[in-house]
Amino acid sequence: MCIFCQIIAGEIPSYKIYEDERVFVLLDIRPINSGDTLVIVKKHVANFEEAAAEDLQAAILAIKKIGRLIKEKLGYAGYNVIENNDPVAGQEIPHLHFHIIPRLADDGIKFWPSHDYAPGEAEEILRQLKS
Amino acid sequence: MCIFCQIIAGEIPSYKIYEDERVFVLLDIRPINSGDTLVIVKKHVANFEEAAAEDLQAAILAIKKIGRLIKEKLGYAGYNVIENNDPVAGQEIPHLHFHIIPRLADDGIKFWPSHDYAPGEAEEILRQLKS
Repeated sequence: MCIFCQIIAGEIPSYKIYEDERVFVLLDIRPINSGDTLVIVKKHVANFEEAAAEDLQAAILAIKKIGRLIKEKLGYAGYNVIENNDPVAGQEIPHLHFHIIPRLADDGIKFWPSHDYAPGEAEEILRQLKS
Repeated sequence: MCIFCQIIAGEIPSYKIYEDERVFVLLDIRPINSGDTLVIVKKHVANFEEAAAEDLQAAILAIKKIGRLIKEKLGYAGYNVIENNDPVAGQEIPHLHFHIIPRLADDGIKFWPSHDYAPGEAEEILRQLKS
């Protein structure tokens, strides 16, 4: 059984914050900033493509709820919501989950660089997406 | 009027991918990887805290829909879903939006480092969250 399924089943202890019928929320024990939280869809699905609409909708409402707590109770000024969809995107545990990363000014967390499209490239991407 | 509201209103041209009653989806013109997509909640709200449940739920279903296109039509093996909630988290435009970042193996995008909690720190965070 996957580690998240074991945590949800109570077979592995965790810092549980919240649980309802569809989601399980806990502290990430390897935080980026303290209070780093995982929102896990209880049903074992790998990614967005496998997830039921109702589970995704429950997850985003849980993120709203916990994000507010992170600001109000822990005093953070904001947070990042991140879902790494598939191993190539950095997903380490193949069970759908969202990170809520609390943020402080000048905490040194860097975002990666963006760039400009080459001429005509965006049009071609759009054509492929709509094909 | 904010730049996203102007794009949604059609006053600024964009590479629109999809639109429904609640969300507007377009290519980010400053991509990290080509096909980098923004899912914008149409109603002008700054962040999760201001957003209606129905708008968040529409956004996550749009992410599922567009993420599948990014894999099927553009040939990516996965993607990151990122929402920067508040300026301290890197949110540059104060109108709620989600990034879908297509990912390839060995594309050089780095994630930031995590660390271990000090003894007792996780327990204290959990106590504050539940207070």
